[in-house]
Amino acid sequence: MSTLPRAMPHATSRSAVLDVIRAAGTISRVGLTSATGLTGATISTVVRRLIDDGLVLETGHAESTGGKPRVLLQLNLSSRFAVGVHLDHSGISYVLTNLGGAVVARMSRAGAGVADPPVVVARIAREVQALIEGVGVDRSRVLGLGLVSPGPMTPAGGMRLTPPSMAHWNDFPLAGVLETAVGLPVMLDNDATASAIGEYWSGGVGAATTFATVFMGAGIGAGLIVNGSAYRGASGNAGEIGHICLDVDGPECWCGARGCTEVVAGPAAVVAAARADGEIARATGLDQAGESPRSSTASAFAAVVRAARRGEPGAMNLLEASARYLAIATRTLANVLDLDLVVLTGPSLAIAGPIYLPVVQAELDRSFFARATHRITVQLSRSAAMSPAIGAAAIVLQAELVPLRQGLRLPENLVESGSGSLARASAP
Amino acid sequence: MSTLPRAMPHATSRSAVLDVIRAAGTISRVGLTSATGLTGATISTVVRRLIDDGLVLETGHAESTGGKPRVLLQLNLSSRFAVGVHLDHSGISYVLTNLGGAVVARMSRAGAGVADPPVVVARIAREVQALIEGVGVDRSRVLGLGLVSPGPMTPAGGMRLTPPSMAHWNDFPLAGVLETAVGLPVMLDNDATASAIGEYWSGGVGAATTFATVFMGAGIGAGLIVNGSAYRGASGNAGEIGHICLDVDGPECWCGARGCTEVVAGPAAVVAAARADGEIARATGLDQAGESPRSSTASAFAAVVRAARRGEPGAMNLLEASARYLAIATRTLANVLDLDLVVLTGPSLAIAGPIYLPVVQAELDRSFFARATHRITVQLSRSAAMSPAIGAAAIVLQAELVPLRQGLRLPENLVESGSGSLARASAP
Repeated sequence: MSTLPRAMPHATSRSAVLDVIRAAGTISRVGLTSATGLTGATISTVVRRLIDDGLVLETGHAESTGGKPRVLLQLNLSSRFAVGVHLDHSGISYVLTNLGGAVVARMSRAGAGVADPPVVVARIAREVQALIEGVGVDRSRVLGLGLVSPGPMTPAGGMRLTPPSMAHWNDFPLAGVLETAVGLPVMLDNDATASAIGEYWSGGVGAATTFATVFMGAGIGAGLIVNGSAYRGASGNAGEIGHICLDVDGPECWCGARGCTEVVAGPAAVVAAARADGEIARATGLDQAGESPRSSTASAFAAVVRAARRGEPGAMNLLEASARYLAIATRTLANVLDLDLVVLTGPSLAIAGPIYLPVVQAELDRSFFARATHRITVQLSRSAAMSPAIGAAAIVLQAELVPLRQGLRLPENLVESGSGSLARASAP
Repeated sequence: MSTLPRAMPHATSRSAVLDVIRAAGTISRVGLTSATGLTGATISTVVRRLIDDGLVLETGHAESTGGKPRVLLQLNLSSRFAVGVHLDHSGISYVLTNLGGAVVARMSRAGAGVADPPVVVARIAREVQALIEGVGVDRSRVLGLGLVSPGPMTPAGGMRLTPPSMAHWNDFPLAGVLETAVGLPVMLDNDATASAIGEYWSGGVGAATTFATVFMGAGIGAGLIVNGSAYRGASGNAGEIGHICLDVDGPECWCGARGCTEVVAGPAAVVAAARADGEIARATGLDQAGESPRSSTASAFAAVVRAARRGEPGAMNLLEASARYLAIATRTLANVLDLDLVVLTGPSLAIAGPIYLPVVQAELDRSFFARATHRITVQLSRSAAMSPAIGAAAIVLQAELVPLRQGLRLPENLVESGSGSLARASAP
């Protein structure tokens, strides 16, 4: 996994200035001096270079307060772009965002399925090329590509601990192969974590700086933002609420434990239950010739959701049972982190969210441990299907915008040591 | 709840310098300049005042590296002290620590029981007086008193969401009444959170900056340290692993949910099961005249542990069953936070830890989600009975030693903004 190229320690001042401009929307050089603690001379030099590089524009004057009018600066939003890719068994989503994180192009294509990883990577390279060319963006302006997937990434840039549907990706050196194929710097992350970064970056959570996404794609996970930084844990595996025990005597999960959220309530469990019940199988069309146990879980889950929305009681019962388990897993997450905001997101909740949302909210209202002190708000993402891809692009932008910590001369305990610090968009 | 008196912004440099000296052990003025980023002139002024105030000592010279020998500075450990109090139904523990957090006096007294809060507070004031006088420390050198208890604290300085045994403390204005009675600034916190702060502060976790304590006193909780800061959540209720669901159809818990760790595995559940089984009740002495269901859970739980250690199989079976539940709750915590270090602590684990530790370690080795990437080390606290009180004292010391964040001129996203920072005094 490569980091984007940059020089140190100069890049620190540059990133700090860029991030303050981004967060402020517009700001003067004097304002930058005050906000960053850098000297006027440093600000002057850094801003000059940012203007020369086309990343920042002079955009008019602040109202005079008696002295010399101050020139306002803003990001040149169309000066740089980032690609975000969400790779999953059942679908691959792409976004291209501008420097502010706004989506300027998006597309969805067939999932990785059972194809060999090199074949899928070659296709991703072609599809990324089409995405960039489709909106006429100069490739030299694309900072890099963020790719997120269910499998957490190893330091060597491959997947590990993948769910069964992605098991053939285990230890494939994804970052290096993809970087060669696409010709852009590549950054990898977990899709649930990216979904939280996407919500935070795109303004979907307002002023909140600590919250979680509850993510349901083919599997179930959570993305954690704590004090404005992505919390990833010791090995990038934080937020694994799909693998917390809801029933000590429950069925065995692929992860090796029993009664996990995913095995009792995930899309595959819902689909298996629908197929096992003759009436529900008929009502959802899962008994038909074109459908078989080998069909994608995502399309079969979508069929159950459509049946429930048509008023089929069996399908609705299955989804509500799944939602109750997901609600209890969400309560566990909320009790561990004492959250006040949870965002439901991910491809499966993009279609089933309206069924799950009231069940999760009601369970938290009824039994969240700290309910006597505050309520938890549960909301459905405005971009539940695309939030991992948007977060993937945001990870690339952050690497350009957010200063590196180690360049700062401060006692270590003053500075967040996590790698996951986030900036956020001033406007969605 | 009061904050300790200090001036701003001067206090920031002072605290930063103090904390760097504390962390370093010994350090020169040049070393301080390098570590803090403050100018040599500022360091010189701040150090002079710290020496004048008696908080810092000159302690000899560093080995010459060719230039002028450098004078080394260290904390004057006996210049200031802090009181830590762990208040619980079944026991009240006290420590007096020096400026470095080392315990210079400790004592344990009867618990709060069913006595009225004002009566208990008056006793605490007398016992704190005895603690301080017993070691001949001048009261003017005691910075303040930290009190921790199972009930999280409300902004008004009282308890809320208390377990049933402490229900009569609900909304009692503890901080104010205690401050008046003791004559010291008072800071309140949750006992499980304090246990983690105590481990971190006292060096029990080595160089780790992210870890959790799994705390078992009368109830079960967890204390979370993330990137060197206590994570408290939106209302100080983070880490409530006693109230996560291990069995959706399990017995109802006092918190309103079903199948919580505490109701299936806590000391009260162990004791109830021991009393309900005639053979175990006899083997543990819980059937005797002096014992009744009204006896303290702590003493009855201790009786079960003693019986297990004597080789009574029924008692051992009950504890191992409890340990398996606690292990699964610990796995949930570890899967949510992707931890690599868990410390077992609290009064109940002070006595039962040797039985619980191998069960928890084995469960994590077997089924922790990210076990393919790294192992989780589970260790027993070296001061499991006193760690909440030690942490309570540490919270007071931190308020003196660790700089406030807002005094620093940095972009906001460089500085931890959460309420959980160890650096902060609790809000009034």
